[in-house]
Amino acid sequence: MAVNTVVRLARRPRGLVRREDFEIREESLPEPRDGEFRVKAEYISLDPAMRGWMNEGRSYVPPVGLGDVMRGFSVGVVDASRHERFKEGDAVAGLFGVQRYAISNGTGVTRADPGLAPLETWVGGLGMPGLTAYFGLLEVGAAKPGETVVVSAASGAVGQVVGQIAKINGLRAVGIAGGAEKCRIAVDEFGLDACVDYKAAELADQLRSACPNGIDIYFENVGGEILDSVLLQMNRFGRVPVCGLISAYAATEPPPGVRNIRSILVNRLRVQGFIVFDFASRYDEALGRLVQWYREGKLKFRQDVRGGGIEAYPDVLNLLFTGDNIGKLVLRVD
Amino acid sequence: MAVNTVVRLARRPRGLVRREDFEIREESLPEPRDGEFRVKAEYISLDPAMRGWMNEGRSYVPPVGLGDVMRGFSVGVVDASRHERFKEGDAVAGLFGVQRYAISNGTGVTRADPGLAPLETWVGGLGMPGLTAYFGLLEVGAAKPGETVVVSAASGAVGQVVGQIAKINGLRAVGIAGGAEKCRIAVDEFGLDACVDYKAAELADQLRSACPNGIDIYFENVGGEILDSVLLQMNRFGRVPVCGLISAYAATEPPPGVRNIRSILVNRLRVQGFIVFDFASRYDEALGRLVQWYREGKLKFRQDVRGGGIEAYPDVLNLLFTGDNIGKLVLRVD
Repeated sequence: MAVNTVVRLARRPRGLVRREDFEIREESLPEPRDGEFRVKAEYISLDPAMRGWMNEGRSYVPPVGLGDVMRGFSVGVVDASRHERFKEGDAVAGLFGVQRYAISNGTGVTRADPGLAPLETWVGGLGMPGLTAYFGLLEVGAAKPGETVVVSAASGAVGQVVGQIAKINGLRAVGIAGGAEKCRIAVDEFGLDACVDYKAAELADQLRSACPNGIDIYFENVGGEILDSVLLQMNRFGRVPVCGLISAYAATEPPPGVRNIRSILVNRLRVQGFIVFDFASRYDEALGRLVQWYREGKLKFRQDVRGGGIEAYPDVLNLLFTGDNIGKLVLRVD
Repeated sequence: MAVNTVVRLARRPRGLVRREDFEIREESLPEPRDGEFRVKAEYISLDPAMRGWMNEGRSYVPPVGLGDVMRGFSVGVVDASRHERFKEGDAVAGLFGVQRYAISNGTGVTRADPGLAPLETWVGGLGMPGLTAYFGLLEVGAAKPGETVVVSAASGAVGQVVGQIAKINGLRAVGIAGGAEKCRIAVDEFGLDACVDYKAAELADQLRSACPNGIDIYFENVGGEILDSVLLQMNRFGRVPVCGLISAYAATEPPPGVRNIRSILVNRLRVQGFIVFDFASRYDEALGRLVQWYREGKLKFRQDVRGGGIEAYPDVLNLLFTGDNIGKLVLRVD
């Protein structure tokens, strides 16, 4: 008889997560009530935001409570339903938590189409990371053709989509990534004009070469010293959509401060934080365009699919913070 | 026979300015040519931005060249004219430089009305500082009735106008200032709801009491630790118009970094630098409203007029950075 496998938060981690920060256990299979359905997850999305959700304190969503199922997106197939619109066999993505089976009433659930793109894509480029890239670059970043965008974590889940949407919209796109292989992928697979390896040489010098007309938009995924370096090369009236600050999420020490705030004043920059949830009313419009670009072959997605099952969740999650994944990181459930 | 007194930049200062950073000398009286007029300055505006203009390096305007007349606003009376629209006896304000007499072709010159408000007001609340407050709060800050604005340097040239425009527009206005007297003035003269003395006690605690509904707008004049402290109390979708960073202008060491960048992301803040010059096409509209509020008694201005003549320029300028002025600082020429 089928059982559920559930990852519950056992204590608040410090720095990288450890196995002991979670209770990973078998639980009885939940049954849907009227208006609900049950989904069997096939791929669990590993997102940097997860690490933030484990911390106490004020954030854009409440922290995951101790003892609660770890919050997370996954994509899978409905295997039991008492819901009008979601039927057995439907492929769906949503905030189903880090567990094999989840019960949902349909809130925030989107449909996946495995005929169009592999299932895991629907928690990647055609899921929240893709939507984050779309709204961050085009709305918050107010991207215009001919401008130069720099995106950090350029081969990551969001970064890879940012760079490609920039190219589709006629911008010069320059990535920042850690390591030669990630940079090669950003240029060869995602079509960026250049990608600089912040581990290889002085970032400021590399950016200066890669951005001869300066930087109009910096799509911020990492924070820390990289932000400081980019700020000094921003053009007047530049925009900095702040999507993530991964360098700080798993830090045990407070991160060093950002020194070049003066550039915000002098260059009249607009530095703006955003969360994709704020654009929920426009997901359909954006997803329609992402799907269209994907069908036309203008968008490609690179997933980094890891095995090991749900039990591997803590170890796989840490890859995001050690930089050892390439592309959108997902965990295959079986 | 009349001569000019001119302050020329002799070397690039480090930290507070010194007398030796300037050459202050008598020069022959310049004569207007066709299309020009000569103005005899009565009040020279002392602005924090002046200190930045003395530094080498990229900024929103080129630095003042060595040997050049120090850049600065002043207000005075036309005493000779070969210009169609500006006649002898007209009161005018403009970027006339730190000197007794200046030649102008009228570019960027605004008219002062000493019948409406004292002459020095036209380089203060009815001049660039007033316009800076207006556009910074209402446009960049997108102020809405019922919101809470915090303004640093609350009794200063810009801050005093920000607080009053906020009250006129139905916001809760809370100042930050250094010292009990400045705080008293912000509340008693300018009508702010509260003003906290950052020198007196823990700023975060004081802000929490003064802003029970959090902070929607932080009008930034100072930078440094105050910015860091305010960032942690910003409400979702808050705005931070960055008008000035006076704490850094005369610093000899690089200022400490801003640590609480995470609040920008979590609270979806918009941190935006601006320079009043960017709004030049709308000065008339804004000045019209400032004048109207002034006539109606809703706006009051406090000037800190210093004597000593043009020779006192270096010493008087430093008052801005030591915090020893109260209100808009101007130098009386004679």
